[in-house]
Amino acid sequence: MTDTLRIAVIGAGYWGPNLARNFRASPDWHLAAICDLDTERARRVAGSGTDVSVTASLDTLLADDELDAVAIATPAATHHDIALAALAAGKHVLVEKPLADTGAHGMSMVQTAAQASLVLMTDHTYCYTPAVLKMRELIHGGELGDILFIDSVRINLGLVQPDVDVFWDLAPHDLSIIDFILPGGLTPVTVSALGADPLNAGKSCIGYLTLPLANGAIAHVHVNWLSPTKIRQMIVGGSRRTLVWDDLNPQQRLSVYDRGVDLGLQVLDGADRRTATVSYRLGDTWSPALPETEALAAMVTEFAAAIREGRTARTDGGAGLRVLGILEAASRSLDSGGGATAPRHDREPVLVGEASNA
Amino acid sequence: MTDTLRIAVIGAGYWGPNLARNFRASPDWHLAAICDLDTERARRVAGSGTDVSVTASLDTLLADDELDAVAIATPAATHHDIALAALAAGKHVLVEKPLADTGAHGMSMVQTAAQASLVLMTDHTYCYTPAVLKMRELIHGGELGDILFIDSVRINLGLVQPDVDVFWDLAPHDLSIIDFILPGGLTPVTVSALGADPLNAGKSCIGYLTLPLANGAIAHVHVNWLSPTKIRQMIVGGSRRTLVWDDLNPQQRLSVYDRGVDLGLQVLDGADRRTATVSYRLGDTWSPALPETEALAAMVTEFAAAIREGRTARTDGGAGLRVLGILEAASRSLDSGGGATAPRHDREPVLVGEASNA
Amino acid sequence: MTDTLRIAVIGAGYWGPNLARNFRASPDWHLAAICDLDTERARRVAGSGTDVSVTASLDTLLADDELDAVAIATPAATHHDIALAALAAGKHVLVEKPLADTGAHGMSMVQTAAQASLVLMTDHTYCYTPAVLKMRELIHGGELGDILFIDSVRINLGLVQPDVDVFWDLAPHDLSIIDFILPGGLTPVTVSALGADPLNAGKSCIGYLTLPLANGAIAHVHVNWLSPTKIRQMIVGGSRRTLVWDDLNPQQRLSVYDRGVDLGLQVLDGADRRTATVSYRLGDTWSPALPETEALAAMVTEFAAAIREGRTARTDGGAGLRVLGILEAASRSLDSGGGATAPRHDREPVLVGEASNA
Amino acid sequence: MTDTLRIAVIGAGYWGPNLARNFRASPDWHLAAICDLDTERARRVAGSGTDVSVTASLDTLLADDELDAVAIATPAATHHDIALAALAAGKHVLVEKPLADTGAHGMSMVQTAAQASLVLMTDHTYCYTPAVLKMRELIHGGELGDILFIDSVRINLGLVQPDVDVFWDLAPHDLSIIDFILPGGLTPVTVSALGADPLNAGKSCIGYLTLPLANGAIAHVHVNWLSPTKIRQMIVGGSRRTLVWDDLNPQQRLSVYDRGVDLGLQVLDGADRRTATVSYRLGDTWSPALPETEALAAMVTEFAAAIREGRTARTDGGAGLRVLGILEAASRSLDSGGGATAPRHDREPVLVGEASNA
Repeated sequence: MTDTLRIAVIGAGYWGPNLARNFRASPDWHLAAICDLDTERARRVAGSGTDVSVTASLDTLLADDELDAVAIATPAATHHDIALAALAAGKHVLVEKPLADTGAHGMSMVQTAAQASLVLMTDHTYCYTPAVLKMRELIHGGELGDILFIDSVRINLGLVQPDVDVFWDLAPHDLSIIDFILPGGLTPVTVSALGADPLNAGKSCIGYLTLPLANGAIAHVHVNWLSPTKIRQMIVGGSRRTLVWDDLNPQQRLSVYDRGVDLGLQVLDGADRRTATVSYRLGDTWSPALPETEALAAMVTEFAAAIREGRTARTDGGAGLRVLGILEAASRSLDSGGGATAPRHDREPVLVGEASNA
Repeated sequence: MTDTLRIAVIGAGYWGPNLARNFRASPDWHLAAICDLDTERARRVAGSGTDVSVTASLDTLLADDELDAVAIATPAATHHDIALAALAAGKHVLVEKPLADTGAHGMSMVQTAAQASLVLMTDHTYCYTPAVLKMRELIHGGELGDILFIDSVRINLGLVQPDVDVFWDLAPHDLSIIDFILPGGLTPVTVSALGADPLNAGKSCIGYLTLPLANGAIAHVHVNWLSPTKIRQMIVGGSRRTLVWDDLNPQQRLSVYDRGVDLGLQVLDGADRRTATVSYRLGDTWSPALPETEALAAMVTEFAAAIREGRTARTDGGAGLRVLGILEAASRSLDSGGGATAPRHDREPVLVGEASNA
Repeated sequence: MTDTLRIAVIGAGYWGPNLARNFRASPDWHLAAICDLDTERARRVAGSGTDVSVTASLDTLLADDELDAVAIATPAATHHDIALAALAAGKHVLVEKPLADTGAHGMSMVQTAAQASLVLMTDHTYCYTPAVLKMRELIHGGELGDILFIDSVRINLGLVQPDVDVFWDLAPHDLSIIDFILPGGLTPVTVSALGADPLNAGKSCIGYLTLPLANGAIAHVHVNWLSPTKIRQMIVGGSRRTLVWDDLNPQQRLSVYDRGVDLGLQVLDGADRRTATVSYRLGDTWSPALPETEALAAMVTEFAAAIREGRTARTDGGAGLRVLGILEAASRSLDSGGGATAPRHDREPVLVGEASNA
Repeated sequence: MTDTLRIAVIGAGYWGPNLARNFRASPDWHLAAICDLDTERARRVAGSGTDVSVTASLDTLLADDELDAVAIATPAATHHDIALAALAAGKHVLVEKPLADTGAHGMSMVQTAAQASLVLMTDHTYCYTPAVLKMRELIHGGELGDILFIDSVRINLGLVQPDVDVFWDLAPHDLSIIDFILPGGLTPVTVSALGADPLNAGKSCIGYLTLPLANGAIAHVHVNWLSPTKIRQMIVGGSRRTLVWDDLNPQQRLSVYDRGVDLGLQVLDGADRRTATVSYRLGDTWSPALPETEALAAMVTEFAAAIREGRTARTDGGAGLRVLGILEAASRSLDSGGGATAPRHDREPVLVGEASNA
């Protein structure tokens, strides 16, 4: 393996150009090729006067022995087949979220990568933003205490997607972030989803996802394509402190509140006594300074590091798979009218030596 | 009936003093008495040097033939018995929200009032705020078009109540407002509730209520006692315009967005074609001026007017009953793990001449 | 001196009722009388069924030997004569801001009080708010380092006053706060004022006050009656940290920024070298929790304590005089077209034993 | 003149790359060359694999007969000499703000361009933002009525510049905007400037500029390099409506308030009577939708159009000169301790046929 890794970006649509720009700017990577059925579009992403090659053929691309890795930014339904072909050709693989269109497909990708000792990474971009990295650091460091609730809102006037509903389009962001910041990952007891399609678009344009967690905690996600106001806010309530992330407030993205309700331990003789032991903390608020770094730049760096160190990446295939498992459970819940659905733990992959001897 | 109506406030705890203050200041009313088992507390509300009498005895109070009406501000579990006693004594009745502790109790109150041709009014205070009155006016006037979704958030660091959960404590506000602003009232197809009790308080401290409406629309309510940030926001999405009510922004409480997604009618040959017919409106935003009036003052005026005109009040017992029906369905859903529960329409009261010949 | 001090409020207009309410609620005070030429208005403030007497005669009021103190809430032009009469009658005096209509009047009040060993206090209400008290604590404790600049904005749609311009109406707030929070008080090198009267109201409705301070620092005040948006914000920039007070943001009134520009000490060979030594700190932001207490309640407590302890009050006559000195200099600057005017330090009172042996 | 105009960007520092990017993307322009003494920096701006030439020699650049125009993005002190050389070579000229380092230099540039019938345009970028274009449209259309006051705040933690003070660095933005939106341009009666240098940087880091306008109106500008909070807000108060531009609120950049103070015309017998005739309008607020277009793209389009149509550009040399005149008056005021200084109208250029027969 040479100093600089060679990467190709597959898919020159909405997200591919962002990936290409960051691989091109990274000292770890050499952007070797852009692959898209629409070669004209691919050429625009490659740029004129560069040595980035352009091809419409996945086979041709993967036949290049000097290529170390591919980044897949095509529609979710195609991720599985492209990733398996790439893995078969010995390439490390980065996949745009969601990892795949089904949990079964995702599991097959994870298992194949593990067997081939190749890195399979999910592009959970938000997990590389300074705000989310700081949230993870604070939560893992115990600053918030036990997590009591997580409430995430991601609403905006959004493009009604042709192939997916609002859960599959937007909730991967929230789910991957929650999975990333919680010490044990996101492992809900059940999944309940309720959606609405008031425009008769043929799929949910508004979605609510409720995820009871262990120990009585709860996570809730509101995704919405029809809101004229844009809100991207996550509240993480803890037993010691509570954190609010407002992604649209660049001057104060994170606020840590030293406030909360403390419930006394003694409940002697009924309701009134219990009330008497409720107490409030109204402490200071603190907003940590965050560096101004681009998330995608950190993500491509992590991809290179995982490959070089022969280890799983931070947002690896397993993370993508956990998100997929919840999305699938959400779809089942939606079909059943919102009933609580258990994520199918039988779908958990047997992780045999993923990237262990790369 | 004399020019000025005589009222007694029953209950001198948290809400009673607010009612007393507004009845005292109203030209329609004469505050005659405060009734509370704790007569010292009652005396403080009555004030020194006034002719407001104080009593611990409900029987004594109701035996006063000159008393026209009572306002009940006691715990919800006592509403039914007190109201029935008052109605039996021929008094008009105003009840703090929620109307009663059970739908059956509420229905019995509504039916008793109707049979006695007395006014039974629910103190849904928010329905008398300038913001909510303007929302109702805009929606009833067709400014928003068809209602597609309603999303209401009411979260704050709140006192964990001894007798009720967060749904029964906070959601009556949201439900009564939605009931008030929708032309046909709030009649959800089903009710799904999911809560969490991460502090082990013995009841939900965090609650999510999902209410599918007719024609694919949806309403959703988030209530939370554990949030260090206070949010009171309702988004009402319509086919023509969308309205956002931010009750904590006194400089711009209401915003009407002339923005939205329009879905083309023609869907010829599949997904791509449908996408092509999605279009966006990104029009102006408009924030109507609102008068600075106190909601409770308008509420006591409406109570007097309903009595004098022998008509049902704006937020009558029926409104209180609809809210109760949803709260009860929410409790059933909660018990069943969040499943969709139908509100029990068999509980709808037979409205025989309520206040029709008062 | 008995346990409870007896106070009369003179002036039952806009501010008098607030003073009366707080004296009435204070355990330190007994509200004895309301004095106003309009006795009907005075009676409304006194309240029915109380033992608060009402009079239109200042002489009658001051002849009451049991009265310990008076609070003057009349137009500024009358402060001097009323205060002198009260001091002559041996009463301690609290005066609504501004202390007087001229510096000479104010100085005569201060000197008379000092000679009589009576407390003369200026009602600089904001100096008793939790936010301003915390600002003073932080600045006096050195948390901000050296003060580099203070920028205060107080704009709103305000009533055009008949007798004073916008400087005399609003700037006393800003000036008294700055005087209170700066360790040495507010002692500008010069005062420059520029105003505008675009409605032809006969006086400035918009005003800008620039106050160069010692060591190159500067304070600036913007007051405006014609702004449709309400802004009440003060930025206090220090060499270590900077503080922002946004009085209209109850959820985060104070923010302390650990950010700033550091200028290197070495300037070797010209401009480029100096640039190279500029560095930025982009540290955390911190928002201290503030208690929810009413400023006027703390103010009347301080008035009682100053009387009892025979000491000057926190916002004493001298503070009122410093504010007056700047307002007068501002008026002179305004007349001269905005030129820098020196505050007249010859007006500084000789403080001979003010309240020293009370 | 061919269809596509050929441009060179002179100066590859902070602003040059933005100009280069926009000229490159414009269908009106062909980016022909980048000129900078640091050819390595120039090459990076030119990009690899392109036909954009790179040179360190201004003479070489200007000797190219096929070049139609140059854009100057060098330090202000060099604008005059470069512009005169370019005009002498028959090139149209765009100059980064401020137009020049002195009014005399600016006037010489304007007169030279006029005599040569070449376009001299000042890059007042903000005048091409959708928000400022809408402000101009509303004000010129009479929506605000007579302009009563303009208050502009532009504060931020900013780089202390080696060669200019905060007035010359930041105020050109505010001044050029005000000049652009006022129907008659910005023609203050006098200019008063007060600054502060609390860090001992050798120049003002905080600046206040007060500009009395005709008819009692006033404009005021606050610029500040030392503020940890970033504020970019302009209030334009009119006799009919008032407009607030908050450039850091992308969701509501412009708000038009139908609120104000109306002063009655009759003032019969003194102060009280006048007060009685003050009235308030508290009407709706309206926020116009704004397109999401890049200002620089519109600016390079206007430059091309002015050249092709042989007319002065929207933000022409004269606009740059008016800004310079105020900056120079501000410097004189600053030297005199803040006194009101008249802009030197003798510096107004005699505009003989500027670009009249191009």
